Parts: sequence; structure tokens; C-alpha cells
Amino acid sequence: MDYNKKSLEIHEKHKGKLSVELKVPLKSTEDLSVAYTPGVAEPCREIAKDSENAYKYTIKGNSVAVITDGSSVLGLGNIGGLAGLPVMEGKAALFKEFANIDAYPICLAEQNVQKTIETIKNIAPGFGGINLEDIKAPECFEIEAALQNLGIPVMHDDQHGTAIVVLAALINALKVVSKDKETVRVVVNGAGAAGIAITKLLIKYGFNSGQLIMCDSKGVIFIGREDLVSNKYKQEIASVTNSVKLQGHLSDALKGADIFIGVSVKDAVTQDMVKSMNSDAIIVAMANPDPEILPIDAKAAGATVVATGRSDFPNQVNNVLAFPGLFRGALDSRATSITDDMKLTAAKALAALVLEPNADKILPSPLDKSVVPAIADAVKSVLKS
Amino acid sequence: MDYNKKSLEIHEKHKGKLSVELKVPLKSTEDLSVAYTPGVAEPCREIAKDSENAYKYTIKGNSVAVITDGSSVLGLGNIGGLAGLPVMEGKAALFKEFANIDAYPICLAEQNVQKTIETIKNIAPGFGGINLEDIKAPECFEIEAALQNLGIPVMHDDQHGTAIVVLAALINALKVVSKDKETVRVVVNGAGAAGIAITKLLIKYGFNSGQLIMCDSKGVIFIGREDLVSNKYKQEIASVTNSVKLQGHLSDALKGADIFIGVSVKDAVTQDMVKSMNSDAIIVAMANPDPEILPIDAKAAGATVVATGRSDFPNQVNNVLAFPGLFRGALDSRATSITDDMKLTAAKALAALVLEPNADKILPSPLDKSVVPAIADAVKSVLKS
Repeated sequence: MDYNKKSLEIHEKHKGKLSVELKVPLKSTEDLSVAYTPGVAEPCREIAKDSENAYKYTIKGNSVAVITDGSSVLGLGNIGGLAGLPVMEGKAALFKEFANIDAYPICLAEQNVQKTIETIKNIAPGFGGINLEDIKAPECFEIEAALQNLGIPVMHDDQHGTAIVVLAALINALKVVSKDKETVRVVVNGAGAAGIAITKLLIKYGFNSGQLIMCDSKGVIFIGREDLVSNKYKQEIASVTNSVKLQGHLSDALKGADIFIGVSVKDAVTQDMVKSMNSDAIIVAMANPDPEILPIDAKAAGATVVATGRSDFPNQVNNVLAFPGLFRGALDSRATSITDDMKLTAAKALAALVLEPNADKILPSPLDKSVVPAIADAVKSVLKS
Repeated sequence: MDYNKKSLEIHEKHKGKLSVELKVPLKSTEDLSVAYTPGVAEPCREIAKDSENAYKYTIKGNSVAVITDGSSVLGLGNIGGLAGLPVMEGKAALFKEFANIDAYPICLAEQNVQKTIETIKNIAPGFGGINLEDIKAPECFEIEAALQNLGIPVMHDDQHGTAIVVLAALINALKVVSKDKETVRVVVNGAGAAGIAITKLLIKYGFNSGQLIMCDSKGVIFIGREDLVSNKYKQEIASVTNSVKLQGHLSDALKGADIFIGVSVKDAVTQDMVKSMNSDAIIVAMANPDPEILPIDAKAAGATVVATGRSDFPNQVNNVLAFPGLFRGALDSRATSITDDMKLTAAKALAALVLEPNADKILPSPLDKSVVPAIADAVKSVLKS
């Protein structure tokens, strides 16, 4: 099927994917007097007395803003906020379909860190949570960090949603190949939002940080690489990973490695590189829409477990496995942030949904309806503990 | 009925009044591939090529942001953005019910003119129109003026929605008492957002500006009143109204006047004041929830036509008679602003819906479904002419 053509058709037919609907009737004069003036003054007064009452009388507690500046949309790059609207609508639609959350897309006109922070702070009161989306690195890190004291969970999904699903995939993939997180060598290719978040979460989970190697378009990241001075986030990664101070290219990093994680570009990995890896290699190739190496080629070169971002291959790494349940749990428990503990617990819960992992089944299907409640419960369990 | 109690109950039961729903299915892997990745990239690309395509492929063209800073909510005063959320949700619900517009509430954290302007500019791209709501004067004037070049209609409804309905009411009330707009003396009590907008629209329509007198809490506004130096909007009103430079109190202004328009406070008008007016006086007493004078008292004192903001008296002046149709027409015709011509034409169209006006029927019912198409057509006719 030509998804592009079909997608244009369905977007044009419906003029987008979302509508705003009423939960109360507005048919009679009495309806108007209850839902609007004069009756509506009473919930206003209650919230003015105690802002907590907004959770009782308004949409706040079940609403999430899906906000982008359009600086890094899918594999399309910097196309601007408005051009990102179809993705934001899609994200909001996924929130509704999978977690019954009322999400609304907000597309920013500007790509300026301080303005983005100020704008989000200013529009935050009516929302119960904020999902940052498709904002490029390193700006995304600063923006997310600056919004952690709003009293509501604020999460950049490209970072943490991806990291959670990758960790869940690796938990099960390691079972399949009978290796341990403490001893495997991991190479992450791509030092953008997702790559850095994945690396940090793997370390938090217990992967040996010295055995982790991150590569960017210039090759292996190591302490002292001169161009890193301009990027404190890559410096931070360099300071905790790559303990042997390996230098060189991705191909050098992959020699003897157990796991490849790609958040980079099509064809970044060759069959020769896979052949140079340790036996029972695990490949998570998430470049969009075409992976770093096709599963058939990776397997032919000796990989045991291969995952991609695509629905037409086994083991789809799809953020929809994480963010709906994460926000469902966070909203239900009135969490004020999405903590590392929540992310780790969510990844473990996601992995546990696959009872007997095998090379072609390390993750649940994105359509599996048991995922959201499992992750939501995991998030809630962290807050209760 | 106790609307306050009932309103709290219904708001708590439903946790607000709005939900976000899907217009496309998301049940299968194929659905996901069309509505989300990889298919969604195609409408993004089309919009990146030409931003006009956002109207073709997204919710933009039918969406309105209902934005408040909560500085002047109903009769409740400055209760802040979040406490205004029940009103904003109600407004959004009215947009949907009456005009099938998808409106979403945005409650601002800050009450700072420049920050409000910057925030709204920054979140504007995804919306087809912006309805400013419950922002106090004089800040509302500056905010609205600064947002007129966004390429989408931006309107402060407390000003213009009210002004349009009041003008429609007066057009018909003048027919009932057989007086002419050019000769009547009009007193507007309340120099906030609505009062100033009403006065300006009446002048645009052809009321004799010199015969118009505006009063605020300090009494009659006249050129040279010392305290006006701090308010350029009241100065502007003073410079075009009250040609005889009357000074004094509301009671002085009302002597011999034909029309009283109140956007002020309960009991501001006494029966003696009504008695001092010209014969066949018209009273539009919109203080909320209790009018400047009750209809029964105004009539007993000699008024011929009395309108209020309330649904339990005849002649309800309700903004819902204007804003849904205005925005419906503006969105359908891709208007980039709501012009004075549109407001005047809308008021005339609204008045014309009452075929035979009488003292108890100068406006259509707020539930009259013929109102929105009539006003939308009026707005569109202005753009076509």
C-alpha cells in the first residue's frame, strides 16, 4: 500500500484527525445556565479558592498538551511547528485511542529555547501534563529541564519514550541470547535526543557505562574530542562512557560489540560491521523510515535479534508502547514529573508482558491493549513506594 | 433551580465539559501507518512546501483557541487563568454546539500584556482563529491590537461579541419605539472592555456620537476630566462623545436620555433615574448576574423596552448570539481579521432575524439555530463585496 497517498487522502477528507466534543448537553436554556452562565461561576469560585479543585471540576486532570517547535519532525528534519501539526495530531490521537487521554496539539511559531520555555510555562495551567515532541537536540534537553517545576509531568517523548521501549527490547533480547547487562558492550549510533536518553537510561538500569560507546556523525565520542566543547551533553556522555577511550569510526566501535542501537540514518551499518560484532549480536536499528540495516541483511551477517522502528518487520520499537501508559499513570497518580524510577519500572513492566521472548518477539505489539494498564500501574507503583 | 449546585455536580461528574476525539480510526497496524508513521510524513511535507496546505490536511481551519488570563472573569473579577477554565471550556462547548467549531481552552499563568502577546503569537500557528476572553480593560485593547497581523482572526469577545448583540438589540428596540439612531441620546454606563466596544460600534453604525455619553465609576466622562490622562482609551471616547461636555453623575447623564446601556453593577440605576429619561426609554441592563435595574422596576418607572443578560427575562443579550456565527463565517471565508464592517453586518443580520420586533422580543433566542448561519453568511458577504 502507498501509505503516503492514503495518508494525504484521509487527512484531506477529514481535515485532520481530531475534534473537540462536548461531555455535557447544551440543548436547553437550563443546560446553558448549568454549563455556562450563571452556574459556571461556581466551579470558577471553587478553583479560585483552591487551585486543586481544577482537577475536580475541569478537563485539566486528563489533558495533555502535545507541543512542538517542529525543529526535528520524524525523519523530515526542521520543517517548523505548523508542518509538524499532522504528527502532533497523530500523537494526540494515539493518546486518546490508547490511554483515553484528551491531548491537544500546540505548534510553536518560534524556535528559540527561552521563548519556548516561557510560552509553555504560560499556557501550562490548563493542562495536566505536557508532552514535548520533535524538538531537536541539544535544545530539547534545556527546554525539558527548565519545565520540571511546573507541578505537572513534562516529558520529551523522543527521548524518554524511545529510551523506555529500547530498554524493554534489550531486557528481552538479552534473555534470548543469554547475556548479562553488566558485561555486554553496547554501541549507540546517533547522539541526538533519543541516543543520549537511551544511553543514560541503560546506565541507570545497570549496563556497564564504561562498555557503552556512543557515536555521532563524526565517529566515536571520547573524552577530549575537540569538537565536544560546544556540546555539554555529549561531553557528559563522553565522561561516563567509553572507558578505554576508543577513537575512530562506528566500524571500529562495533568490533566485538554485543549490541548496536541505531537512532541515525539509513544504511549506516554494513553487513561487514555486523560480522565484526560478537556472536549472538543484537541489532536495534531505528532510523526512520529505513533502518540502519535491513533485518534480512543483519541476520544474514550473523545477528541473532533484530528490531526496527517499522511495523512490517518483527520487533517494532514504537513509542506508542510507552507514552500513553506513562502519562496515564502519571495523570492518575498526580505525579509532578516522570522520574527515572518510573522510566525503569515502565521498561521492566513492558518487557515482562512478553512471557517467552524469542528472536522474533522481544516486544508486545503496539496494538496490544494490555500495555497501557501495565505501564500505568508500574508508574503508579513507583509513586506509592 | 440552584444553578450553582447543579453546575458543581455536573462539572465534577464529567470532570469538565470537553473531550478530544478521533476523526479517523486507529485500530489496526494499517490505520497507524496511515494516520501516524510512516504515512503522516506526507501531509507534513506538503505543509512544509506550502503552509496553506495546513488548511487542507489538518484541524487548523476549524480550530479556535479560547484564551484567557483570567483577569476579568464573568462578574467574578480577577481570579486568574486557571480559575477561568470552566468558563473557557463552556465557551469552547458553545463554539462546538452552535457552530461546529473545534475550540480549545488555553489558560495563561501570567497577566502581563507583553507576555500574553508573545505567548499567543507563539502558539498561533495551529489555530484558525483566536477568541480572547475575560481579559480586563485596558490591557485587552492593547493585546487584541497587537495580534491583528497573525493572518488569522483574533477577537476579544467581551468587547465585540457584546457590542454586536447590543447593536442588534438597539436596532430593533428603536423600531419598537419609533425613534432614529441619529437623534437619540444614549448613555453607556461602564467604561471597560464591553462599554468602550459598544460605544465605538454604535458610532460606526451611525448613532450621533456627540449625543452619546459614557460614564464610569467616577461619573460622566468628558474631555478634560483630570484622571483620564492615565487611560488613553477613555480619552479617545471623551474626545468623540459628549459634545456638550456634560459633567456629573450617571443620574445627570440619564436626564432626558433615550437609551441606557449598562455594563456595570447591580442596582446602578434607580427608578427615579428611569423616570428622568425621555419617554419610551430603552434599557439594556447587562450587569451579571443581577442587572443595573430589574425589568419589572424599569417598566414600572416608564421604560418601554428592557433587555438584560439573563435568560429568565425577555430580551436576553447573550454573546452566544454573535461569536459562533462570526467565527464560523470568518473561518469558512478564511478572513484574516474580524472587521468593523463584519460586526455591523452581523448586527444587522441578527436584528433582521426578528421579523416583527416588539417590547418583549428584540432579539432571537440564544437557542435559535437560524442565528449562526445568518451571521456567518453576513460575515462572508462582507468579504465577497
